[in-house]
Amino acid sequence: MSFIEVSADSDFPIQNLPYGVFSTKDNPKPRIGVAIGSKILDLSSIKHLFDGTQMKDKQCVFDETTLNKFMSLGRSAWKETRERLQELLSKDCPTLKDNDQLRKQAFVEQNDAIMHLPAQIGDYTDFYCSREHATNVGTMFRGKENALNPNWLHLPVGYHGRASSVVISGTDIRRPNGQTCPDETKPPVFSNCKLLDIELEMAFFIGGQGNKQGEPIPMDQADDYIFGLVIMNDWSARDIQKWEYVPLGPFNAKNFGTTISPWIVTMDALKDALSNGPTQDPKPLPYLTQQEPSALNIDLQVTLKPAKSSTEHTICQSNLKYIYWSLKQMLVHHSSTGCNLRPGDLIGTGTISGPTPDSCGSLLEIIWRGTKPLQLDENTTRKFLEDGDTIKMTSVFIDCRVEEKLNKDCSCDCF
Amino acid sequence: MSFIEVSADSDFPIQNLPYGVFSTKDNPKPRIGVAIGSKILDLSSIKHLFDGTQMKDKQCVFDETTLNKFMSLGRSAWKETRERLQELLSKDCPTLKDNDQLRKQAFVEQNDAIMHLPAQIGDYTDFYCSREHATNVGTMFRGKENALNPNWLHLPVGYHGRASSVVISGTDIRRPNGQTCPDETKPPVFSNCKLLDIELEMAFFIGGQGNKQGEPIPMDQADDYIFGLVIMNDWSARDIQKWEYVPLGPFNAKNFGTTISPWIVTMDALKDALSNGPTQDPKPLPYLTQQEPSALNIDLQVTLKPAKSSTEHTICQSNLKYIYWSLKQMLVHHSSTGCNLRPGDLIGTGTISGPTPDSCGSLLEIIWRGTKPLQLDENTTRKFLEDGDTIKMTSVFIDCRVEEKLNKDCSCDCF
Repeated sequence: MSFIEVSADSDFPIQNLPYGVFSTKDNPKPRIGVAIGSKILDLSSIKHLFDGTQMKDKQCVFDETTLNKFMSLGRSAWKETRERLQELLSKDCPTLKDNDQLRKQAFVEQNDAIMHLPAQIGDYTDFYCSREHATNVGTMFRGKENALNPNWLHLPVGYHGRASSVVISGTDIRRPNGQTCPDETKPPVFSNCKLLDIELEMAFFIGGQGNKQGEPIPMDQADDYIFGLVIMNDWSARDIQKWEYVPLGPFNAKNFGTTISPWIVTMDALKDALSNGPTQDPKPLPYLTQQEPSALNIDLQVTLKPAKSSTEHTICQSNLKYIYWSLKQMLVHHSSTGCNLRPGDLIGTGTISGPTPDSCGSLLEIIWRGTKPLQLDENTTRKFLEDGDTIKMTSVFIDCRVEEKLNKDCSCDCF
Repeated sequence: MSFIEVSADSDFPIQNLPYGVFSTKDNPKPRIGVAIGSKILDLSSIKHLFDGTQMKDKQCVFDETTLNKFMSLGRSAWKETRERLQELLSKDCPTLKDNDQLRKQAFVEQNDAIMHLPAQIGDYTDFYCSREHATNVGTMFRGKENALNPNWLHLPVGYHGRASSVVISGTDIRRPNGQTCPDETKPPVFSNCKLLDIELEMAFFIGGQGNKQGEPIPMDQADDYIFGLVIMNDWSARDIQKWEYVPLGPFNAKNFGTTISPWIVTMDALKDALSNGPTQDPKPLPYLTQQEPSALNIDLQVTLKPAKSSTEHTICQSNLKYIYWSLKQMLVHHSSTGCNLRPGDLIGTGTISGPTPDSCGSLLEIIWRGTKPLQLDENTTRKFLEDGDTIKMTSVFIDCRVEEKLNKDCSCDCF
């Protein structure tokens, strides 16, 4: 138990302690914090208290404006920091609790904070790891017999994404313009996107020093490179995607914005969520074989609040455990050619769809390519997003919730 | 004419003045320099001499270890700096020429310099803009009738690449391991890449402040965002690519290394190379329409020096003017969704192949998928690269040469 009051429905009990970067009106410098209850503990104010063997010479990482340097310290440092934080925040520890001045300095109300991207993202990669999602999309576009491509069950299919346009939850996303070909018998047109979609994903940040170029990360070291998880909305312009993506994959359809939640939940906080993932058949090649269960049982939910409405409609309930390839398999495959991963790199799972219609993680699947419009209430239906819609993606696991709010304030300017 | 001696065959006359980042044994701090003859002019030593209206308050950009801040200043600053450099290096200007102490400090022999990546590359994008290359590859894999995909003549097809593994010329590239499927009737295997290829490309660095997310760059402002050009070798693992690339594009086949030349030739130095590009039919959509010729007449050459040989064999002679989509069209299309480009971002043209067999920019095309092995000399043939081969890509334009040396010291370790 913490001396900081944590309400029963809080996302941030002492078992969670996710990391983020925030600033305040009074102090606009971005700084590293940990969420606890409705507050943020400012680590730059208490860095001197991290005096364990791992951190005592590394306290300066908490003066940074991003988490990259802390991420680079590796698992022993993360573990020691977490244990120290749990100690400092506990009811029985006087260090912070009984030091009024330090407490006043060190705690900020989340309501008073402006959240920033938690890391400088060197590279952002997105995978395509839900079998249900890949099957749904494949069935729609190629028929049931050819739904999964021949490679899909043998490797986690992924692609390089755009790092510059990854933004923090709450950032308005503008409806993109782009080239599309609505009628294949006619020339393409340039207009605003008509089929704007969401993708429910989670993503992990790379930690540790990173591997050297040319030196793959073997499976038994993969854990050391995974710092923690965020929820991610991979906004997707389906009409742009359809026209552009052959043969080099999605490009402009995905590079206008990708939203992540502000708090990174560490793998240590997620230990109790470990579970068995889907059975992998055929058996993965040796380099992708893992000995222990490494799926994560994390419930996920998506709501849509239509423009000018105050009602949030649940449109998807899914779970991270549905993904076929584990985070570690993605990481190992990514580096198998010797590709160097760096602390702060972001790796997405791809859309997390489950086995039932209400667990589909994208509108494309929910409305089955337009054939099943979504009835939100008596007067409101949706196929794809309309201007002013707000998407919220949340996650409940153990006692912890991570919340992501997305505002979509769309405009349709053409230039 | 410069007071620095420049031999007739030098890549670096006073008309060129490309920017790079270097260090020396005596001073390991990377710093910004300009190539002139066989020397480098160290801009950190002479920053006080940039006293024009644009640069007098911005001299500190020459204290940086990358060019990103200088790139971000924009065209007027680049132009003023270039003019000042040409003045300072001219025979008639005593400022540097007659100041022995400053000269001694400011000039370094290129032979004594270690070159570094010229910029921190936030994002790296690669296009696919040579019609001949796309047609050759399409013909090999889909037949002559379906060589070009329906979108190809309407937009510059591109994809997001991996920024972390972009390296400077001279860096050894290791033959990657990866998952491939050599026999489609059998399960895939994990082994070293058997079909290691090159791609002759050029790439440009983004300059200026960058556009805000959600705000596309219109064609009439595109020039302001192009800082300069390098030669690029987009090393490609064809067997990995073939198995992995459907449907999300090349991933591990391209992320183990991408080599660029160390010197960035500015667009101002390339003014005389402007020429008409290929006729674009059908006419591009209005957002991609450009009023002035913006192709660049830059001869390119690739040599291959086999392992244990000292002979460089010319295997390709091409020209940047062959690419169908111009640099400006790539830039405008890339940002058309509102994707934010940042100074230091790198954008590649894709393989630059010309209309004749000797102008193909990749081994895949040169050997036509293995059917026409390359006879280098009496005893040496090549299909794809062998361990120890060295690739050199060079360019001659106006009086300037940019040289790129690539060493490929391959190993075949499996982990």
